[in-house]
Order: sequence, then C-alpha cells, then structure tokens
Amino acid sequence: MDFTFDVIAADEHDRLQALYAPLTQAIRDLVQAGIRTGVDEDSIREAQRAIEAVTATLDRIHHDDNPRMRHAETERPVVWANPVIGQRNALAPPLTVHHDGDGRCWSEFELGAAYEGPPGWVHGGICALVLDHVLGEAASSGLSKPLFTGTITCKYLRGTPLGPLRVEAFAERVEGVKTFARGYLSDADGVTVEAEGVFIMPAWARDAG
Amino acid sequence: MDFTFDVIAADEHDRLQALYAPLTQAIRDLVQAGIRTGVDEDSIREAQRAIEAVTATLDRIHHDDNPRMRHAETERPVVWANPVIGQRNALAPPLTVHHDGDGRCWSEFELGAAYEGPPGWVHGGICALVLDHVLGEAASSGLSKPLFTGTITCKYLRGTPLGPLRVEAFAERVEGVKTFARGYLSDADGVTVEAEGVFIMPAWARDAG
Repeated sequence: MDFTFDVIAADEHDRLQALYAPLTQAIRDLVQAGIRTGVDEDSIREAQRAIEAVTATLDRIHHDDNPRMRHAETERPVVWANPVIGQRNALAPPLTVHHDGDGRCWSEFELGAAYEGPPGWVHGGICALVLDHVLGEAASSGLSKPLFTGTITCKYLRGTPLGPLRVEAFAERVEGVKTFARGYLSDADGVTVEAEGVFIMPAWARDAG
Repeated sequence: MDFTFDVIAADEHDRLQALYAPLTQAIRDLVQAGIRTGVDEDSIREAQRAIEAVTATLDRIHHDDNPRMRHAETERPVVWANPVIGQRNALAPPLTVHHDGDGRCWSEFELGAAYEGPPGWVHGGICALVLDHVLGEAASSGLSKPLFTGTITCKYLRGTPLGPLRVEAFAERVEGVKTFARGYLSDADGVTVEAEGVFIMPAWARDAG
C-alpha cells in the first residue's frame, strides 16, 4: 500500500469543500426524508425516478480513483469519503475533529434518526464507530500516521440519546508499533460510553520507516 | 420506554418493503455517486437543487412517529430505520440477518466506497458497527428481547477489504440480566475481526418482566 500524498493548497481545499459539502448535506437530508416520509405510493415512485436521474448525472464523470491529498497548512490527510468525517460522504454525520496541542482531540456533533438503534437512542454500533474513529485520530496524530485498529473495547455506561453529543480522545502511550488511546462519548449529563483501543503500525509502514 | 408492538401482517410487510426498498436503494446509489462524482460545478449545483426538491416532496407528509411493529410470522421487530439492517435507511448496507434454529445468526453482504477507511479497506469502526449489531441480534434472539450493549471488544486480526463479506454471531451464555455473545467478520480468506460482547436487559424491562 502506498501512503504518499499530493498536497492540496488551503484555497483549493476550501473551494472544493464549498462545492461538495452542500451537495453532501442535501443527500444527508434526503436520507432522513427517506426514513420518515409518509407520502403516497406514486410520490414515492416519482421520487425514486428523480433520484435515479440525479445519480446518472453525477455518475457521468468520476474523479480520479482515490486521490489522497494532504492539506498544505494542517498537513493532515483530506479524507473526503470517510464515513465519520468525510465532507463528501452522506453517511458521515460528519464530525469535525479538533486537535489540541497536547495530543487530545474532540468533536461536538449531532446524531439524528439515521443513527437510531432502540427508539430514541443511538445504535450501540454507531457509538463504537465514532469512538473507533476519534481514538484512531488521537493515536495517529490526526490520521498523519498509517495506523490500523488492533483492538477496541467500548463500555456502555448508559444509553446515548439522539441529539447533540461530544466525543474526545487522547493517546495514552506508545509501545513499539502499538499506540494506546482512550476516549469518551458524552451527552449534556456526562459520559455515556468509554472506549480504549490499541492502534498498530502495519508491517509495510515499519519496513518503510 | 414502551416496548410494545403493533403486529404487521406478512403481506403488508412485503408490500411496504417492495415500495420502500427500491427508494432506499436509489438513495444509497446517490450517496455513492456523491462520493465519486467528478462532474463540473454547475452540474453539482443542479444536482443539489434537484435533490433538495425531492426531499421537500418526501417531507410533505411524515409517517407516524416511530411506529414499532412486530412481523406476524417471524415475530421479530420490523426496524425499518436501523442503520445496519433497515430497509428504509440508506446508511444501512443493508444486512439481511438469518437466524438459524440453534441460536446462531449470520449475514452475507457487501461493503462499498461509502464504508471505506484506509484506501481499499473497510473503516475499523464500520466493522465494529456491523459486529455490535449482529452480536446484539444473537443475544436478543433477533431483537425480540430489549437488550442494550454493555461492553463490546473487537480484535482486528487483519484489514477487512471492501467487497463481499460475511458476519456470524452466537449467544454463548446468559447470567442473570447479562447475555454473552461472540462473533466474527470474514472475507473469502477467513476471519478478519473477532468480537465478544455483553448485552444487558435494562432495569425497566426487568421490572416489567
């Protein structure tokens, strides 16, 4: 696997984000509308045809396969398609992850109906998805090192309600190829899920390093 | 929390699924098109407007809030909006989970670009999402008992490639309010991620039982 990157200038990044983020948000809103709509059958079928037409238009030209870019200023990879933070992936809430100087990172975000497990609560696996990602960001200094999840454990203290949430994580220590990270998912009343994870540098990156 | 259900007849379930599943698949295809499109700016903006118009149409009428239904034949809850198995949630791949007579369950499914973490590989948190869900299905006999995740640990043996995958899980034992489950995510070459979880019956369900 190649872990090299093209550099994207801050201006060009902002231009692309201003173009794609509203499209992706429109798709995200459509995902939610699809879950809760109660319109008649003809309207459903008409909506389906209209969506298929838009998809055909967008699919006329694909961008280069997996262009990997590093932001000129932050020096972090720009992962447009990531299912947690990607500005071009409608599956992503998306989280904006802030990196503090001391190796901690955090994000405040909101989860709606598309992330629901038990009625009113976030699906337990969605909590794990968010925590895995943010622990990985802490362990890899904002995805700037090629690390894969080795093990992750999530301990659910109570249900996580749909709505505004906060996640934070930090790297505890590094032992050879392993980085140990810890993090928390919280609502306004405090922590709902604790997580600890071990992130591992793959053999190809060790050899290269 | 209320855990009662209306019963939905098999015919009515099939009618609704035939109506909604193609709409949801169209939205799923649009999510993927949004990730990889390389069309010009005007086309992007036109697509955005077209999507917003469809969303406005679907949002004219909402279905009843959180209708919870149990299938008349399988007796399992019908969770249209679930982010792993929901036939009305474009975030869900969706998995079709098969329950064997011996308490095991399994699913064969495919993950594409929307679930990608490192280039070519499934995001580690998506593996955790799928495993949490399927272990929960095993622990709760197909979601027919109100169980919440207590703890889940995922051990990543190697990267999970995008493409066709299989997940399986089984309940190992029950100790009071805790059910212990175990499961595996695999590609054609064998297991990529192992998981074990403890699922807990909430106090309100214990009191009711």
